[in-house]
Amino acid sequence: MSWNKVSFTYFNVKALGESGRLLLAYGGQEFEDKRFTSETWPEIKPTTPFGQAPVLEIDGKKYAQSLAIARYLGRKYGLAGATPEEDLEIDMYNDFVNDIRAKAASVQYESDEVLKEKKHEDFSKNVYPAMLSKLNEIVGQNNGHIAVGKLTWADFVFAGMYDYLKMMLRIPDLDTKYPNLKKVVDNVYSLPQLKAYLAAAPKCDF
Amino acid sequence: MSWNKVSFTYFNVKALGESGRLLLAYGGQEFEDKRFTSETWPEIKPTTPFGQAPVLEIDGKKYAQSLAIARYLGRKYGLAGATPEEDLEIDMYNDFVNDIRAKAASVQYESDEVLKEKKHEDFSKNVYPAMLSKLNEIVGQNNGHIAVGKLTWADFVFAGMYDYLKMMLRIPDLDTKYPNLKKVVDNVYSLPQLKAYLAAAPKCDF
Repeated sequence: MSWNKVSFTYFNVKALGESGRLLLAYGGQEFEDKRFTSETWPEIKPTTPFGQAPVLEIDGKKYAQSLAIARYLGRKYGLAGATPEEDLEIDMYNDFVNDIRAKAASVQYESDEVLKEKKHEDFSKNVYPAMLSKLNEIVGQNNGHIAVGKLTWADFVFAGMYDYLKMMLRIPDLDTKYPNLKKVVDNVYSLPQLKAYLAAAPKCDF
Repeated sequence: MSWNKVSFTYFNVKALGESGRLLLAYGGQEFEDKRFTSETWPEIKPTTPFGQAPVLEIDGKKYAQSLAIARYLGRKYGLAGATPEEDLEIDMYNDFVNDIRAKAASVQYESDEVLKEKKHEDFSKNVYPAMLSKLNEIVGQNNGHIAVGKLTWADFVFAGMYDYLKMMLRIPDLDTKYPNLKKVVDNVYSLPQLKAYLAAAPKCDF
């Protein structure tokens, strides 16, 4: 089943959108890389399925939710599990990564500045170390990957949001403190299929 | 592939665990329904994959993450999509439901009481109505289901956590205000496959 017209719409950052772009590039799918800013988002928001981005549009049909999109593209491009049990493992580790992101995001997007710093201090002491150690251990057991010991779409999700996560966690030495995490990122970003996309894509801090 | 020994471990509430129990019951799978309380959780926590519940254990292998488990069981019992595109739709609507839950949970589990009430007021005005109207509309278009116009595992996820969501949203007239939502719940709870489980299961408020 080939597609005629594909676009991917997201803020001009990596964060939750980069996995979709990376997966489309990995699959050799030409797509319009539509990037918007906070200024133009209010115009785009009402055109999305849930008032959220990213949005993957395939021949006029719009799909939302970054993880659902990544799972779908991963399956299409041979990056899913070989069995239902492998898919379950990919999903559970991916959801654990997402829990870490959600914790950090709950700090990052806290509008009360005093509480934000209080939360950051609390999580930095009582939440992040256990979760990140666990994830580092998981990746160590999985040969530099998030799950099932090989490259899957969950690696693309993690690699795509790594800088975003690092910014929110405020752990500048994340690379050396939990060294396996960076391996997932390097394993994805060194894929030859991504070379052309990465050379052409705008540089984003996170 | 049949299983010898299956257990499902979660707090003695519905919340994020009931979907797994309902799906096992729907599939006719005998399982040990292990329910714990806040008092015994500290003993159980270190035995789980991520320090989180629920946990599905199949012949000695433990799986975590409620949505990953529900997707897996749904696939096993014929409650997944008929095509990859249907699976994508189920995933995206399920993740949208999960976004609503996460918003409400961020209020429910806020430890600062003043901020909790401030957030609840904010979300009740600026977040919940748009999301719940959207979900009500989606279910209306899907014939009383979360996605693809038929019974899927995403219905079990939603039905299982409906009372939990209602409690956290603090909308006592949720049933009548967004009437399609209750249809999803009723469609699941009236399934004949669930009758024996529901008759035997402990009654929980949420």
